[in-house]
Amino acid sequence: MRRLHALYRPLELLFPGGRAKSWSRLTSCRLASFRMGATHPDVNSFVARSKTCGELRSAHIGQEVTLCGWIQYKRQEQFVVLRDFQGLTQILIPQEEAASHLRKLFSDAPVESVVRVTGIVIPRPPGQANPRMQTGDIEVKAETAEVLNYCKKLPFEIKDSIKKTEALRMQYRYLDLRSIQMQYNLRLRSQVVMRMREYLCNHYDFVDVETPTLFKKTPGGAKEFVVPSREVGKFYSLPQSPQQFKQLLMVGGLDRYFQVARCYRDEGSKPDRQPEFTQIDIEMSFVDQAGILALTEGMLQYSWPEEKGLIKIPFPSISYDEALSTYGTDKPDTRFGMKIIDVSHILRNIDVGFLQNSLSEPYATVKAICIPEGRKYLQFKDLESLNELSKSQFNQFISYLILKPDGNIKSSLGKFLNEEKKTELIRTVKANTEDVVLLAAGQQKKVCSALGKLRLKSAELLEAKGLLLRDPSAFHFLWVVEFPLFLSKEENPEELEAAHHPFTAPHPLDEHLLYSDPRQIRGQHYDLVLNGNEIGGGSIRIHNAKQQRFILETVLKEDTELLFHLLEALECGAPPHGGIALGLDRLICLLVGGSSIRDVIAFPKSFKGRDLMSNTPDYVDPQELEPYHVQVTWPLTEAKARTN
Amino acid sequence: MRRLHALYRPLELLFPGGRAKSWSRLTSCRLASFRMGATHPDVNSFVARSKTCGELRSAHIGQEVTLCGWIQYKRQEQFVVLRDFQGLTQILIPQEEAASHLRKLFSDAPVESVVRVTGIVIPRPPGQANPRMQTGDIEVKAETAEVLNYCKKLPFEIKDSIKKTEALRMQYRYLDLRSIQMQYNLRLRSQVVMRMREYLCNHYDFVDVETPTLFKKTPGGAKEFVVPSREVGKFYSLPQSPQQFKQLLMVGGLDRYFQVARCYRDEGSKPDRQPEFTQIDIEMSFVDQAGILALTEGMLQYSWPEEKGLIKIPFPSISYDEALSTYGTDKPDTRFGMKIIDVSHILRNIDVGFLQNSLSEPYATVKAICIPEGRKYLQFKDLESLNELSKSQFNQFISYLILKPDGNIKSSLGKFLNEEKKTELIRTVKANTEDVVLLAAGQQKKVCSALGKLRLKSAELLEAKGLLLRDPSAFHFLWVVEFPLFLSKEENPEELEAAHHPFTAPHPLDEHLLYSDPRQIRGQHYDLVLNGNEIGGGSIRIHNAKQQRFILETVLKEDTELLFHLLEALECGAPPHGGIALGLDRLICLLVGGSSIRDVIAFPKSFKGRDLMSNTPDYVDPQELEPYHVQVTWPLTEAKARTN
Repeated sequence: MRRLHALYRPLELLFPGGRAKSWSRLTSCRLASFRMGATHPDVNSFVARSKTCGELRSAHIGQEVTLCGWIQYKRQEQFVVLRDFQGLTQILIPQEEAASHLRKLFSDAPVESVVRVTGIVIPRPPGQANPRMQTGDIEVKAETAEVLNYCKKLPFEIKDSIKKTEALRMQYRYLDLRSIQMQYNLRLRSQVVMRMREYLCNHYDFVDVETPTLFKKTPGGAKEFVVPSREVGKFYSLPQSPQQFKQLLMVGGLDRYFQVARCYRDEGSKPDRQPEFTQIDIEMSFVDQAGILALTEGMLQYSWPEEKGLIKIPFPSISYDEALSTYGTDKPDTRFGMKIIDVSHILRNIDVGFLQNSLSEPYATVKAICIPEGRKYLQFKDLESLNELSKSQFNQFISYLILKPDGNIKSSLGKFLNEEKKTELIRTVKANTEDVVLLAAGQQKKVCSALGKLRLKSAELLEAKGLLLRDPSAFHFLWVVEFPLFLSKEENPEELEAAHHPFTAPHPLDEHLLYSDPRQIRGQHYDLVLNGNEIGGGSIRIHNAKQQRFILETVLKEDTELLFHLLEALECGAPPHGGIALGLDRLICLLVGGSSIRDVIAFPKSFKGRDLMSNTPDYVDPQELEPYHVQVTWPLTEAKARTN
Repeated sequence: MRRLHALYRPLELLFPGGRAKSWSRLTSCRLASFRMGATHPDVNSFVARSKTCGELRSAHIGQEVTLCGWIQYKRQEQFVVLRDFQGLTQILIPQEEAASHLRKLFSDAPVESVVRVTGIVIPRPPGQANPRMQTGDIEVKAETAEVLNYCKKLPFEIKDSIKKTEALRMQYRYLDLRSIQMQYNLRLRSQVVMRMREYLCNHYDFVDVETPTLFKKTPGGAKEFVVPSREVGKFYSLPQSPQQFKQLLMVGGLDRYFQVARCYRDEGSKPDRQPEFTQIDIEMSFVDQAGILALTEGMLQYSWPEEKGLIKIPFPSISYDEALSTYGTDKPDTRFGMKIIDVSHILRNIDVGFLQNSLSEPYATVKAICIPEGRKYLQFKDLESLNELSKSQFNQFISYLILKPDGNIKSSLGKFLNEEKKTELIRTVKANTEDVVLLAAGQQKKVCSALGKLRLKSAELLEAKGLLLRDPSAFHFLWVVEFPLFLSKEENPEELEAAHHPFTAPHPLDEHLLYSDPRQIRGQHYDLVLNGNEIGGGSIRIHNAKQQRFILETVLKEDTELLFHLLEALECGAPPHGGIALGLDRLICLLVGGSSIRDVIAFPKSFKGRDLMSNTPDYVDPQELEPYHVQVTWPLTEAKARTN
């Protein structure tokens, strides 16, 4: 009985209800990276242990081993559970008088102290093996032990089951990193990136080139951190991406470039953004769009962890226009249906005031989405909340039809629709009994955006009620292509801005429109979407200097001064080229099912850009600013100066 | 005859006198990275070519191929040599009337224009194969061709043999990158790093963790760039290394960390330094010094390019004291002898004024180096220049002995030495006929530093005269160990500073001296030296919070405020840990025999920290500084403000 306690208590606390990741999953991932390799990684070389806390099995019984780890749990002065990055091992403290110094040593060492134990691997007594523990068949009978470092009382216990505020986790990030989940996330990230490198470098001869991060301001890039230099009044910028460098490397004949690139963007307090982030940055010469898509698909398939299932390539693709009209967004989550369906032809001639008003607008339409089993799962207040959302975010009125079990329709529109129209509508939206159909009429773009948002919100509501629409273990990749090359500026719709960036090449079929109707040009841009999240994007670039200059100067009215080196490079034998960048933090976050990219970054910053562990950013001595010829503009000083 | 011209002229220009690297070396390097792998990299997937310009051989004769590349050379309207990253291929332009459009196309396209050519691989006419060209057995008879981009007149020709100023190379770096040497350097760098990653990640289960570069000021780190944040008066710093993060990762239980880390150091205008540089950053838990040395040796051996020869491990090691007394420096070049030899016991009692004066100083000594064949290769003015150097840099007088062929010694000391002393001296310094012996007397440290410098300078002089002392293709690694933990501050010798950084653990045998005589403590620090250049360093770190606090507060009198998070982390179960960082730029530079680290960095900055290509750093609009609450301190404004 005493042994049962010793065996199960600590593990229950570690893996409550099977929700937390277990060490066996972590290990299977570790091994997955060796699918292709011949050797098993050697984790015990060069160090003071002979085995990790995760690897002892019955086969090791009788061996003398040395383990190093943290005291996870102590019980009855007889058992100590030792933890390292690979797992847990139970240490048995001999009860003989001769071992009293060991009992004292462990008794004096608080939980999370670091110890080194040497002992003999022995089987657990019959019936007391722990099948939930990888090392559950054995324990190590301690012969000698040493406390390598004592631990003070911690602000929280190192158990995934213990709830902690995010602020506390961030303040003690070095403790938070000991959690099974964080260990898993960081190791998985490392392995996925390593596989990508193998694919690019070893299989396709890409060259890993490091590009500078102390660079020049990008035109129009208002979100760049500045770094004062020792030249008075002159600054570096921390670039948002290596865009210019990757293109210049192609001009330099590198042919195939990649980099796991640190990028910087100062977006103030946007949630789930980081001031520094990482992208898998790729560029190739003599390539077209199909080439980049195929390369990217191959890389993701190759690097995808085995435990997450195989991913099928090629990925489906959808045009920007179709994405907007079918999903109301350019990053559709295709794990579930509820597509937006055009019902204009059915409802166009119905004599309802609001419908007719809406349909009199330019580009007007009537669209619908069908919420499966909406009547069963959603309450009236849920439907009202959808309507509220649509009104507040899109100024779009929503009407709904409820298909009752008796075959009747409940809807304010009901009385205006004859049986034929009703049947046609239900058939068109493929509604079944108990479904709810949401209808919106008005300007096409607004209607689609609103219904796209309601589609996601409805899915959330249904899932909150227990209906699983979006499989969290499914990975639906989607290419979105044929974006417009230019968009109207929000502040001045007469003027144009680049939909992505000014280096994107026009679609070959639309090139002739550049000088006549630039608004109609599609660009050779592509976005990669995973489960409704944009995880990457890229384009075929302009390699013709004249075309690039025309777009910058005439179409976009940009100052080309900041880009003279790139424009000149295009005149010096620039090959056709294109590339892509994948957001690594977001990709890994989706892969591990994290709730924020902070879960896959070792030392993330808060949404205000602060490092809570070290209290960064911080004040600096004015003297330290002197070499950089800058001074702080204190609000108070400013006020004072003004009154003087 | 016409063909001979066509075959040889362009290649002569490309590879003059066999000095430049040839494409075959580049290719052998590319292949070397596949020593361990099963697959050959596929360089032609996803792109518009079917072959590179480097891969066609007789075996391909009869095949239709498509090549993409730059026009390297045109001759007689009949031959075009096409270049890409892998090599050169000769294109034969058919002379038939039907191919006149091809002749025109190539005739109109300037050198360095980018073209795509499809044609049939044919053998070169008998006797006209070019054995110096990898593809010299064949040529491609063009069927169709397309100019993908025209090239304007370039500021310099893309040939390694063309001399260009470094400023011009930097301004047009994208053209400079097309040179064989730069292509080779960047590709080699990429492959070496990939091999290091394989070693660390796949073979030893290291976790690649990215750490922040927007961080907090390091105590005492006066060389850190600051980055203003949106919080008034608060700044990030760009860290000089991930030192704190790697230690915190160990506290977080990551066990084995590495990162190819971007680091920043603002050193103004130091030659051959870059404001941003890269280090291979490694940290392990439960490791001792021997473990880190063995790991590093294994990694270097594993990643060393085959073409550079095998490197033998373990590397020799030398203590700091021995390095100073034998080589006069803590980074000895051990490719050649000329060690510093103590001759005090021979000369101590010689009655020469300057000797006796010098020997009356504390820690005084007489040391010598022997310049082999110095009499043969060095002129009087060379010896004088050595003396000058010693006087100006070290205020150290040098005396010399010349061993004449007739067995006599020429020296101002000659008459004070009896035959016995002469013989003993010559035997001790192992001098032969024609050698020159340099002697210095005085305070040990100064004497050794001066002779260490003269040792290097003499080697240069001898090599300038044609005597090869230091094999440029040899790689002599050396560990320097047992550094002092603390040094006297230059400005105030009463105070101590950390010899490397304050986190280095004391040598276990010296730990007891911490509270009594800290000047005598050796640290567990190690430097890695290659051919006289420091290419890395590391240490076993302090994991005991009390010891760390004592060293920071009591020994070094540092403000621990900036390090509170690290000190607290050490109290929370920090494992014993240690690591190393290798300077990647310097290592690759030595590997490729570059003259500066700028030769192995794609887009380096000038020694003043400027990017000459893009004109960086540059002025920014004052408006853009507003969100960061800083303003430029213009010297003029300042002056004006003072007079008001």
